[in-house]
Amino acid sequence: MVRLLTRENVAQLLKMPDALAYVEEAYKQLILGNAIVPQRIAITEPAPGLTLIMPGIIGGKMNALATKIVSVYKQNPEKYKMPTVLAKIMVQDINNGDIVCIMDGSLITAMRTGAATGVSVKYLARKDSKTLSIFSGGIQARKQVSAVYWGLNKKLEKCKVYDLKKDTAKDFKNEIEREIGIEIEIVESGDDLLNNTDIIVTATTSTTPLFAGEQIIEGSHISSIGAHAPDARELDSMTIKRASLLTAGLKEACLAEAGDYIIPIREGIITQDDVFSIGEIITGNKAGRSSDSEITIFKSVGISAQDVAVGKLVYDRAIKEGIGKDIDF
Amino acid sequence: MVRLLTRENVAQLLKMPDALAYVEEAYKQLILGNAIVPQRIAITEPAPGLTLIMPGIIGGKMNALATKIVSVYKQNPEKYKMPTVLAKIMVQDINNGDIVCIMDGSLITAMRTGAATGVSVKYLARKDSKTLSIFSGGIQARKQVSAVYWGLNKKLEKCKVYDLKKDTAKDFKNEIEREIGIEIEIVESGDDLLNNTDIIVTATTSTTPLFAGEQIIEGSHISSIGAHAPDARELDSMTIKRASLLTAGLKEACLAEAGDYIIPIREGIITQDDVFSIGEIITGNKAGRSSDSEITIFKSVGISAQDVAVGKLVYDRAIKEGIGKDIDF
Repeated sequence: MVRLLTRENVAQLLKMPDALAYVEEAYKQLILGNAIVPQRIAITEPAPGLTLIMPGIIGGKMNALATKIVSVYKQNPEKYKMPTVLAKIMVQDINNGDIVCIMDGSLITAMRTGAATGVSVKYLARKDSKTLSIFSGGIQARKQVSAVYWGLNKKLEKCKVYDLKKDTAKDFKNEIEREIGIEIEIVESGDDLLNNTDIIVTATTSTTPLFAGEQIIEGSHISSIGAHAPDARELDSMTIKRASLLTAGLKEACLAEAGDYIIPIREGIITQDDVFSIGEIITGNKAGRSSDSEITIFKSVGISAQDVAVGKLVYDRAIKEGIGKDIDF
Repeated sequence: MVRLLTRENVAQLLKMPDALAYVEEAYKQLILGNAIVPQRIAITEPAPGLTLIMPGIIGGKMNALATKIVSVYKQNPEKYKMPTVLAKIMVQDINNGDIVCIMDGSLITAMRTGAATGVSVKYLARKDSKTLSIFSGGIQARKQVSAVYWGLNKKLEKCKVYDLKKDTAKDFKNEIEREIGIEIEIVESGDDLLNNTDIIVTATTSTTPLFAGEQIIEGSHISSIGAHAPDARELDSMTIKRASLLTAGLKEACLAEAGDYIIPIREGIITQDDVFSIGEIITGNKAGRSSDSEITIFKSVGISAQDVAVGKLVYDRAIKEGIGKDIDF
């Protein structure tokens, strides 16, 4: 029997505080050696788009085994009126290997990416943080706000947003004000985002730095979840240089895929030893923020452990609440 | 909309002659550079069993993109009364990345493994071959007989089988006689399989050679589809030494996983250059059997291209014949 969950089912079952807790646990289990994230498989040619195959396993009390298949086809909206990103997650019973649940993975991808930022905010942002600035008002960005809100234990009061597309920024404002009820200010430039803010989130499709590191005010926490190729980055070398704590969802993944760290390492500004998995801070192996003036950075390229953890959360809840459809096949 | 296909649906849709044609085409497209078989991902610890994630893509007229998730949990029958091997195949639309079909993959795994042998028989066995000897009467073995039957264009007249378990051999005999209508002889030892036979198939779980190479009669074609680890093999070094043509489903896969070739290479009996992908023979790049006296060998460890091809075949036919259930999720 396989439980099938639509996007609507997933939306009903998945709340940000839980996503945050599960992603935090995944990061922790990775450091404890109870989780494995194999190098994901990318398939392109001869297809006109990209498919990523992302399996992972998390032991401990979570006991989760799942695979996400996510495709990124840039021509989809124009050519087929379909989303660019499509995803499904197959959850297996870790005890017998059977696939017990197949769920839509698009919302989970946005939620777990948000949750990563939320975990970083919980551990690295100043405790008195109240304001967030976010580059991009797109789908990914919206879940980031919710994640920061919960990462700050609901103390977020205001969010500034900048998006090249005015309509996107307006939609963002309407959606977030309705969903979370905090003040949203649409600003006219990236520069406007950088003053009077505690937390900066970059969630863009940019492959070049969004601002100059000199502009960042002391005490900021920055989370960068866009750009995930060795020669692409949202943060410049000065930003990395000024930060006193450089973290990653998973260090190995970021050193392989994130230009934000790879380029400054190549330039000799930092070394690989300066980058830490966030799990090291969660487990207490490494100290977190030590003063209100330092700049902290979190970079995430997305790893399967996030999907595996949140997929398991959604599946368990679906069974408990009797949501979704069972098909025998 | 996702088309869901049960094992029964797949059984209804999938016939061996078609499986054989599709696997042959997959082997050909691999050599032509239109198919990609990424290194499969294996997940074990902390799970009590093995999961293999096997994605692949085949261009050309097939245009197939799919991923098989197959688990092998040896304790399943005893502990949960479930099969050891469980599998599902997710078929994507190569044009937009969407997962359009999810099907049971257990029967397909047996059928495509059979089809590999069938393709090898078509190209490498003597044209006057009439008799088959098969080591093991298990599930995999049964589809091998059907594949040899079709690979010989229905000219197979007799099959000898040996299995340590008498009941398994009896079930084999009943099933094959009913299904194909050829004569089945249950023999008392592996030695009895080796005389008066044209084709030998080894489909066991053995990790050590099943017979001495000196016993093989001239002109035989051998297909080995069990043993798929570098230190495991069904064929001994003398068998490999006596053969004049050594082929593989995919050379790179066998050189990485098949002890049948890896061990003789290590011993200096053959070199890597002596092993050819069967696709080289299908495309005519390499000559096949050149005399009625030579011994030819085919070794397959199973590659995703076989699943991708047969999965696409089943999906296309399901749509055409209106079989299966559509679910929007």
